[in-house]
Amino acid sequence: MAIKINKTGVEAMQKTAPAFIDAVKWENDRLIILEQTKLPLETSYEELTNVHQVWDAIYHLKVRGAPAIGIAAGYGLYLSVMNFETEDFNQFWNEFQKHSDYLASSRPTAVNLFGTLERMKRLVLAAQGKTVSQTKQLILEEAHRVKTENCDICQGIAEYGLQFIKDGMGILTHCNAGSIATASRYGTALGPIYLAHEKGMKIKVYADETRPLNQGSRLTSWELQEAGIDVTLICDNMAAMVMAEGKVQAVFVGCDRVARNGDFANKIGTYGVAILAKEHHIPFYVAAPSSTIDMATASGKEITIEQRKAEEITCGYGKRTAPEGIKVYNPAFDVTPARYVTAIITEKGNLYPPYETGLTKLFG
Amino acid sequence: MAIKINKTGVEAMQKTAPAFIDAVKWENDRLIILEQTKLPLETSYEELTNVHQVWDAIYHLKVRGAPAIGIAAGYGLYLSVMNFETEDFNQFWNEFQKHSDYLASSRPTAVNLFGTLERMKRLVLAAQGKTVSQTKQLILEEAHRVKTENCDICQGIAEYGLQFIKDGMGILTHCNAGSIATASRYGTALGPIYLAHEKGMKIKVYADETRPLNQGSRLTSWELQEAGIDVTLICDNMAAMVMAEGKVQAVFVGCDRVARNGDFANKIGTYGVAILAKEHHIPFYVAAPSSTIDMATASGKEITIEQRKAEEITCGYGKRTAPEGIKVYNPAFDVTPARYVTAIITEKGNLYPPYETGLTKLFG
Repeated sequence: MAIKINKTGVEAMQKTAPAFIDAVKWENDRLIILEQTKLPLETSYEELTNVHQVWDAIYHLKVRGAPAIGIAAGYGLYLSVMNFETEDFNQFWNEFQKHSDYLASSRPTAVNLFGTLERMKRLVLAAQGKTVSQTKQLILEEAHRVKTENCDICQGIAEYGLQFIKDGMGILTHCNAGSIATASRYGTALGPIYLAHEKGMKIKVYADETRPLNQGSRLTSWELQEAGIDVTLICDNMAAMVMAEGKVQAVFVGCDRVARNGDFANKIGTYGVAILAKEHHIPFYVAAPSSTIDMATASGKEITIEQRKAEEITCGYGKRTAPEGIKVYNPAFDVTPARYVTAIITEKGNLYPPYETGLTKLFG
Repeated sequence: MAIKINKTGVEAMQKTAPAFIDAVKWENDRLIILEQTKLPLETSYEELTNVHQVWDAIYHLKVRGAPAIGIAAGYGLYLSVMNFETEDFNQFWNEFQKHSDYLASSRPTAVNLFGTLERMKRLVLAAQGKTVSQTKQLILEEAHRVKTENCDICQGIAEYGLQFIKDGMGILTHCNAGSIATASRYGTALGPIYLAHEKGMKIKVYADETRPLNQGSRLTSWELQEAGIDVTLICDNMAAMVMAEGKVQAVFVGCDRVARNGDFANKIGTYGVAILAKEHHIPFYVAAPSSTIDMATASGKEITIEQRKAEEITCGYGKRTAPEGIKVYNPAFDVTPARYVTAIITEKGNLYPPYETGLTKLFG
């Protein structure tokens, strides 16, 4: 049974809801970012006033999560030309291009980063004929728009996903697809949970630690705790037991890329959780903003998986926990076949098998 | 197809096999233990010359693994009375009892510890009438016997388990049920792998990290690497992907307790691995020395699971990786239902479903 929420209703709720932790925001000609590498030990913000600081923040994962990076890049581009004085379009364009290429080098695998840079490039080219001062203003407005659109997308996912949540439910999640990954109130996978919480439902969340980079313990646990949501941290290898004990009635995960047939790539460990959910007859939901849907990829078999360095596993906590010279296999993502997915939640609606039909209809 | 190896054949091989790392051994009136808490950073041994040092070694996990603890306790009891001068049996008995109770407090949940203490108690009581000097000698001989019997048990498991291994196989294991956990050449779950390696088979082992205490990365990776066996470390949440990629053809795990129906308790995460193995049609073997078989327990539902402290997960390696005050669920073990088990390997033979029949026949 679907619970329908219109946007006006949600907006009314937001007026009374407590302020959320905004991981990337623009204030007084400065980009303010939540320094995510210091979490959960320290909640601190950095003020970025030039493009080099933005590059550094993305490179060193102070800003992380594809949508949050895309937003930071938009403001970073504005900072890069904000004080550049010229009235010559070509001079301005060269300066803009240089900084855009520079920002692109901060995180070469981030899809949203390139999405924002490409969008800004088109905007500036279309502004030819306007004054440089006007063009700068357009860039800032576009950066705001990247952020607003992202918030709308996350809100849409939260609203559509809400229908899968019932009061009193236990929900398991993996990695961090939350507010701080998206610089929005809702995030993606955590969106329906936040919205349910705002509506007064009691939800109990189990957060997988998510080795090797511990996004579940460092970030998801932290942001849900900050929001006053009941969250329990478990190691990845405890998910099966938690399910067997009847503590979990749904799994919500985010994703990095959805293929045309509904297979999807997400943080390593997601595929295992999907199998465990199936074995325990627990529905498994994937939150997929349109930026992750890749209709050019036929199936998960075509998705190349990034391999990361051994040290993430062998000396992850500041202390070596494996012998020197040990062989390590460290894929950053895995692919979950569509057959394990109960529904894909997008900002345009929920999709059910066969996914190719629905994805083609909404995103084809 | 079963490959049969008789003990004489194995002994012949051992003569040419390299010396194994003996985690608990008696030399020159001293108990020499491998200091397992320093692994994998440092391979060091400690000489224990009195019962307090043995208590400390067990308490602080310098000696770990149920069989290894049982062996250390036997020698610890001998050390506790070795220099006690009396000719009066009652005096000797009181001294012995005091130290036995003391050792029992070092690790209150270790079954093999109590097994050894109980066995020694019966031995001393039966020695009434003998001189104290003779009784001391009997205690030392019994300690040796605890160790030798354990080696025979591990060898038996290695031999029976070997038939499930084929040259070139990839094998996944969880936690550490190896040589150093048992103070024997073979260990339990790793026994068939060691034996296959001795026979010249090429085996590729995937070792789960085994959060939160990382026995897989700290211990299993280390001991297999030391033995020259091809081992690759993965995080627990990578097991599903490794299986999907066809890298694994069998899973071997140890166990802490087997119920009469074949359900078994083992290190947290084992149950999840069993489900993943089933989903990928990979056989799943449990190595169970007779000391773990508990015919008084009807099924896994009767097994109480120890809950451990949050800090193991939140600050495991010198650095906090979760927010202050976060709720944590940290079960030390989980229960895998018998239906996931392809065979139980014991020193008396391999058992297949229905397990209750076989277990009753061999251990009833």
